[in-house]
Amino acid sequence: MLAALEGALPDGALVTDPDVVDAYRRDRAETVVPGMPLALVRATSVADVQAVMRVASAHRVSVVPRGAGTGLSGGAAAVDGCITLSTAGLRHLHVDPVAMLAVVGPGLLNAEVKAAAREHGLWYPPDPSSFEICSIGGNLATNAGGLCCVKYGVTTDYVLALDVVLADGTLVHLGGQTVKDVAGYDLKRLFVGSEGTLGIIVGATLRLRPPPPPATTMVATFPDVVAAGRAVVEVVGRVRPAALELMDRAAVAAVEAAKPMGLDTGVGALLLARSDAGGGGGARADEVGWITEACDRAGASYVAATDDEDEGEMLMAARRMAIPAVERLGTVLIEDVGVPVPQIPALVAAVEVVADRRDTAIPVIGHAGDGNLHPLVTFDRHDADAAARAEVAFDEVMEAALRLGGTITGEHGIGTLKVRHLAEQLGPDVLRITRAVKAALDPLGILNPGKWV
Amino acid sequence: MLAALEGALPDGALVTDPDVVDAYRRDRAETVVPGMPLALVRATSVADVQAVMRVASAHRVSVVPRGAGTGLSGGAAAVDGCITLSTAGLRHLHVDPVAMLAVVGPGLLNAEVKAAAREHGLWYPPDPSSFEICSIGGNLATNAGGLCCVKYGVTTDYVLALDVVLADGTLVHLGGQTVKDVAGYDLKRLFVGSEGTLGIIVGATLRLRPPPPPATTMVATFPDVVAAGRAVVEVVGRVRPAALELMDRAAVAAVEAAKPMGLDTGVGALLLARSDAGGGGGARADEVGWITEACDRAGASYVAATDDEDEGEMLMAARRMAIPAVERLGTVLIEDVGVPVPQIPALVAAVEVVADRRDTAIPVIGHAGDGNLHPLVTFDRHDADAAARAEVAFDEVMEAALRLGGTITGEHGIGTLKVRHLAEQLGPDVLRITRAVKAALDPLGILNPGKWV
Repeated sequence: MLAALEGALPDGALVTDPDVVDAYRRDRAETVVPGMPLALVRATSVADVQAVMRVASAHRVSVVPRGAGTGLSGGAAAVDGCITLSTAGLRHLHVDPVAMLAVVGPGLLNAEVKAAAREHGLWYPPDPSSFEICSIGGNLATNAGGLCCVKYGVTTDYVLALDVVLADGTLVHLGGQTVKDVAGYDLKRLFVGSEGTLGIIVGATLRLRPPPPPATTMVATFPDVVAAGRAVVEVVGRVRPAALELMDRAAVAAVEAAKPMGLDTGVGALLLARSDAGGGGGARADEVGWITEACDRAGASYVAATDDEDEGEMLMAARRMAIPAVERLGTVLIEDVGVPVPQIPALVAAVEVVADRRDTAIPVIGHAGDGNLHPLVTFDRHDADAAARAEVAFDEVMEAALRLGGTITGEHGIGTLKVRHLAEQLGPDVLRITRAVKAALDPLGILNPGKWV
Repeated sequence: MLAALEGALPDGALVTDPDVVDAYRRDRAETVVPGMPLALVRATSVADVQAVMRVASAHRVSVVPRGAGTGLSGGAAAVDGCITLSTAGLRHLHVDPVAMLAVVGPGLLNAEVKAAAREHGLWYPPDPSSFEICSIGGNLATNAGGLCCVKYGVTTDYVLALDVVLADGTLVHLGGQTVKDVAGYDLKRLFVGSEGTLGIIVGATLRLRPPPPPATTMVATFPDVVAAGRAVVEVVGRVRPAALELMDRAAVAAVEAAKPMGLDTGVGALLLARSDAGGGGGARADEVGWITEACDRAGASYVAATDDEDEGEMLMAARRMAIPAVERLGTVLIEDVGVPVPQIPALVAAVEVVADRRDTAIPVIGHAGDGNLHPLVTFDRHDADAAARAEVAFDEVMEAALRLGGTITGEHGIGTLKVRHLAEQLGPDVLRITRAVKAALDPLGILNPGKWV
């Protein structure tokens, strides 16, 4: 098999050096124990990916694709005996400013696509907190979200077309360059978020937009996290802010400890909101006014707004660094639960109960405006009892989200970490058609096996 | 089979009276010749739909589902020996104003969902021109668009969850009530737009939004349709109007003939635009200013704007009545081509060439802002030569759209009318996985056969 692979690939693409292969076995889900690959392929062309899939199909060898390795659910974790296939080297980029789209390779970082759009006065909105280090391929594979999606949508909303290499090595082009297209099944959106289990994304055509108007950034503090949750419900009941982010006391403290910037660590919870309504003037003043009123009504102890872009960006950066900041405190099982927005107060209350009951720290951050929260189950991995309690807490938070009509993952994906819980959320009948679709597209079951189904 | 069906359904649901059955054989694609069903079932519950699919699976009988029968591509046209399954009687409705969603049955009209949302101060955006007579089930089955989707998106963008009865009668719930959810494949979006070929949609959870601010409506006239196309490119290169609609000279004349309202029938083309940016004040003035400037630059002979809602609504109603108005002039093959917005001038120029070459009237209307146009291939069905030329023209317009990187259908669907052209657009490899997905979900091939694949 390795000889066949070697023969089918350009020099240097196939790597079997254990140290190098080891560096590609994991993503950022640190509690996932990865398997041991046979080899690593660093593809630099679509033809390389096709060659890998042809050889893998012929020899029935598993393929685990990966982008930048910043996934949080173990979707890119190697399995024993697999080929690890990195698409980081597929970096083509073409921006068409008139059609307002970008044709990209999966290896480009999200930030690189944003920057390329910006050069043409355009904007690629999806903004996972890891945007400076995560790849577009990974964003597509997980249907990544971010901070601005409460108003501007998630990755799938920006996908016009995908180039996908199927399990047998066939390259297909799905979708096109038109904004509306109902010719055939929406297959491109089936591949978006499928975490490499249906095919390998080797290119994408992404919609760009005119940039948003300058934003007003607001900070509100609350005596407790449930009150902050109530404010969120009030806000989105009337306006669609450009971001609406929550951090509880422990998350604020972790950020302030990691990078002191004068955040008030005495608060129960903090909301960050951005308003870019109407490009200034009356509409934005109205929106900022309503957010202020909603926060006051929910019991905010302090509300402030700034039109200063640098100050606003600094506050958003504080929010984005929350996960790494909490990771300094221990090993973190990162939840990614979502609930209907009105259930946010109930969810954060349920998380508090779980944290107490399992004697485990669970700082809460998240994209509150769309009901997607990241309770961060934090523990000392050298304390077996604490680790066991954390595992139970991790399950219980997901169960709480499901009880509230929610989801176990809003944007990070199932990966390895949540396979068991996926069955619970989908139920046997949906799991059956999930398997049928998987079998239709990957009949040999070689694409990222052991994840999902 | 009929006895089994009769036994499984409540009294009155099964209809074999030829006159009644005949009334359910067609949709609004008037050139499509429908087949002859064995029977009609008017379902009034999810259980009825499940019973039909169980009997149909057991007896390997085809099922052609239909909503209000307003489809324009023959998707609901009966096939010989089928059961025609009407979901018009599934009319449950629940609006949750706090979660901003509506749980609906497929038989509700689009206008009824809009009205229910409005009662709670909310808005369901998708607005096909037929919104007063088309059903939500049909909207979901075709992923219907409309006028406001240039800014607010199409049907699939508002679907949180679907209830679907599969080919074997199993009821599945896909998606949930959360805005972001990446747990499992995006199966709900696979069913949206699948035109009854994968399952029967028996319920949906739809996102609602706060209503848009009041709009300014603009009219611009141009010496020719290519100039109007250039204006569209300029406009959407900078702003996202709430609607941007095109009518050429023949379409304007047809509307004015059907319902005189003082439209200038001497113009080469007319653009209608709506701006609801920022709720009035500076942002809207800026947007209206830019649209005016873009039209002037493209050679508009006249541009006017009104903030009067009634006047604006009257203008939009004129646009919505264009298809029925043109249908008074002859039999119409309704195109639904889409191209990248920068290609609009080239597309309308290509349509003019086809119309000349085939000596066939092809009035052009459409949602120019998202590149989706409806050239209306109009002919006298009693003139065999004219009908033959119209068929050729119909094909040639689709070919022109494909050459320009476009699609054969932006929002009406494939149905019966465009099956042949679908293969051309998708190509053999995408068709192969389309068939694989179809076979995975409908292994007996009983769901709306002869359409698509």
